[in-house]
Amino acid sequence: MIAHDDTIAAIATAAGLGAIGVIRLSGREAITIAGQIFAGKPLQEQESHTLHFGRIIAPGEGHMIDEVVVSLFRAPRSYTGEDVVEISGHGSPYVLQAILEACIQKGARMAMPGEFTQRAFLNGKMDLTQAEAVADLIAADSRAAQQAALSQLRGGFSADLKHLREQLIHFAALIELELDFADEDVAFADRAQLSGLIQVLKEKVNLLIDSFRLGNVVKNGVSVAIIGKPNAGKSTLLNALLNEERAIVSDIAGTTRDTIEESLNIKGILFRIIDTAGIRKETTDLIEQIGVGRSLEKMRQADLVVYLFDADDSTTEEIAAQQDELDKENGNYILVANKTDRKGTEAARLKYKAFADIVYISAREKTDIDALRERLYNSVIDGHIHSESTIVTNSRHHSALLKIAASLSDIQQGMDHNISGDLLALDIRRCLHFLGEITGQVEIDRDILGTIFGKFCIGK
Amino acid sequence: MIAHDDTIAAIATAAGLGAIGVIRLSGREAITIAGQIFAGKPLQEQESHTLHFGRIIAPGEGHMIDEVVVSLFRAPRSYTGEDVVEISGHGSPYVLQAILEACIQKGARMAMPGEFTQRAFLNGKMDLTQAEAVADLIAADSRAAQQAALSQLRGGFSADLKHLREQLIHFAALIELELDFADEDVAFADRAQLSGLIQVLKEKVNLLIDSFRLGNVVKNGVSVAIIGKPNAGKSTLLNALLNEERAIVSDIAGTTRDTIEESLNIKGILFRIIDTAGIRKETTDLIEQIGVGRSLEKMRQADLVVYLFDADDSTTEEIAAQQDELDKENGNYILVANKTDRKGTEAARLKYKAFADIVYISAREKTDIDALRERLYNSVIDGHIHSESTIVTNSRHHSALLKIAASLSDIQQGMDHNISGDLLALDIRRCLHFLGEITGQVEIDRDILGTIFGKFCIGK
Repeated sequence: MIAHDDTIAAIATAAGLGAIGVIRLSGREAITIAGQIFAGKPLQEQESHTLHFGRIIAPGEGHMIDEVVVSLFRAPRSYTGEDVVEISGHGSPYVLQAILEACIQKGARMAMPGEFTQRAFLNGKMDLTQAEAVADLIAADSRAAQQAALSQLRGGFSADLKHLREQLIHFAALIELELDFADEDVAFADRAQLSGLIQVLKEKVNLLIDSFRLGNVVKNGVSVAIIGKPNAGKSTLLNALLNEERAIVSDIAGTTRDTIEESLNIKGILFRIIDTAGIRKETTDLIEQIGVGRSLEKMRQADLVVYLFDADDSTTEEIAAQQDELDKENGNYILVANKTDRKGTEAARLKYKAFADIVYISAREKTDIDALRERLYNSVIDGHIHSESTIVTNSRHHSALLKIAASLSDIQQGMDHNISGDLLALDIRRCLHFLGEITGQVEIDRDILGTIFGKFCIGK
Repeated sequence: MIAHDDTIAAIATAAGLGAIGVIRLSGREAITIAGQIFAGKPLQEQESHTLHFGRIIAPGEGHMIDEVVVSLFRAPRSYTGEDVVEISGHGSPYVLQAILEACIQKGARMAMPGEFTQRAFLNGKMDLTQAEAVADLIAADSRAAQQAALSQLRGGFSADLKHLREQLIHFAALIELELDFADEDVAFADRAQLSGLIQVLKEKVNLLIDSFRLGNVVKNGVSVAIIGKPNAGKSTLLNALLNEERAIVSDIAGTTRDTIEESLNIKGILFRIIDTAGIRKETTDLIEQIGVGRSLEKMRQADLVVYLFDADDSTTEEIAAQQDELDKENGNYILVANKTDRKGTEAARLKYKAFADIVYISAREKTDIDALRERLYNSVIDGHIHSESTIVTNSRHHSALLKIAASLSDIQQGMDHNISGDLLALDIRRCLHFLGEITGQVEIDRDILGTIFGKFCIGK
């Protein structure tokens, strides 16, 4: 376990102006340090779970920094399991920084990202999947992501896995017991029962593994790059999808230089729509060239590409050629014919009848934008979402689950081939280890912990 | 007084991701409403100034929204003087919005900007200048602004004014008493003493009025527009002043299209430095033209203009012509000769010796940038800052103080001319009214209150 007997401090609320801002302290000296800069009741003498109004005084200089309310949580009844003090001041970044500096001057240390939650984990207040869910919950920007994180925070699939792990530990113990009595050739562990348990575990684990593709979408959203030639109407489409005037549109080809990214929530799933600079083969404008280079890069990185073209002036040969290029650059795309307001949707359908799967819209008139929204949703969800099912959203869990699945196959194969008890016990131990890695029940490598909590925001 | 018996709610922390976010409720039903969405201890039975861990449950749907800590403040021991509940959840904007919506569904109303502080004022928790200081404190982004706001929040000059107002009320009462005994021709009010008091008030008020120019600078910072021809090095100067690479610089004239604004703190005073697109008389680039138009506008609006020119290729005639134009557009400017690294500062001084007051720098080499910083500071402060003195930062106070000064002169003149007691009493009443307007001791117009609190952020 990592030593953590010093006291950490950080601004815990979002950056920027607000009515209230909170500085959080955790550790053995949290109450003492806060008490030294707080003019009001003596904090050391106050009970846990109480609130106290007072002033923060700058150490040394003696001038007031702010009028505040202090929240007191005594160990172990706190988020981290340690003494925790939260100082709630006026939400000026300048003032909050000054309070934080006063805490540091009195002996607190700036907290690392996620260090409060890491302490909660190390003090047994939550398991590792729950700690990870905290970060996911904060980042949640759709109903689906929020519910997936909350389910995980409340124990979610780790409760299931813990339960199965306990049963497996029971078998491991019995098999290891057999080894002690090897001469007597007894079998304490019922092989049929073990095989049944392995089967249950396998099904559970495979379900979780399968949920990851969707989990990734739920958690991170889907990046959608809108690409197309200058003046195809990409910015107009972005505005139509968002129902607002986000991008500057003009009739001048090449108006958009920077890529613009906006979020669109379709039925609880988040789409990050990226409007790119139009791709012209040659442009003399240096800064526009940089923009176009970025567009190509965005296209390759996007989860999904919307290729938008002008139904009025694009030949079928052009679209076929473009389709070949899309197949090369990013197989996941939707062809969208724009400007159907000019000659009508039917005329466009007739013109491009050789292509199976084009969505016809008019971005300017906002015609059939809903059909495109539906198409975006279906292209990633594809009937996979059920609100009750447990979803794995974390790639660390995903890779651990793959290792568990492999070790479960090893156990099953071993039993099928009647391998000796000591080898079977080894396989089970390995599976137990991977199971424990997910929840943090086995000792986790310091570097892995660092990676997990390093993704948190400071103050959590 | 405005009726305020409903319960208001708002997100009180800054927008964006954070470890913690807070929703604040205030009003008669605050605890009841919070209790209805809170799964944990029954909040109605808990004492003031206590903290409670639990879960927020979506009304109707029954799913959990977040795990939270609730702070309870019972009237009148709260910020607003009413029952106040603060719900501290995970700092995801999505989650916080969901908690706020749950409060609204249970009968709370979205708070207007500043409505919590307005209630604090209406419930006598603070006077009007103190309420105004809350907004200033939140917006404080320099030491000077923070200290000015805190001094005002703690009573600051309003305590002085209240004291003088009470003395003046005393005289008003005595003079009005004389009127009741008009037939007997007695003088209860000592005219010499009154004259002395008026003198003290006048001095105090004039000091405060004089402090406003500085107060404005302290509160709002100083906007400084850097203007000059393309390639004079404006963006390089911005970067040199900030000591970082903020603006994209290149040798291509016209690189900067949008105006870039950055903050620079010089000895506790905030300067907002605006880098503008270079002003070319003719440009064919439409978007650059828009940028140049904005530059001219920024120049006119800025508190201070830095006119930057290339010491190497600008003729003295050019600079003289430019100076004429600056005198017309914005009299408050500093001429800065750049690129002294080429032929040396002395050569440049010689070339422009006809001009009294040019600052010579090399933005690229960061030579004499400190001298320019010093010049910026002096050009606004001009020896006016004393840390102990009270500073008026609020334009509402400033205009009220001007009215007070005028009415004090009226009183003084009246006494000099031995006007009758009833007229003198009227003048004093008028002065008392203006004094009371600053602190909110007289009834304030609803519209004025709306204007004052409308400038607050929501949640305060």
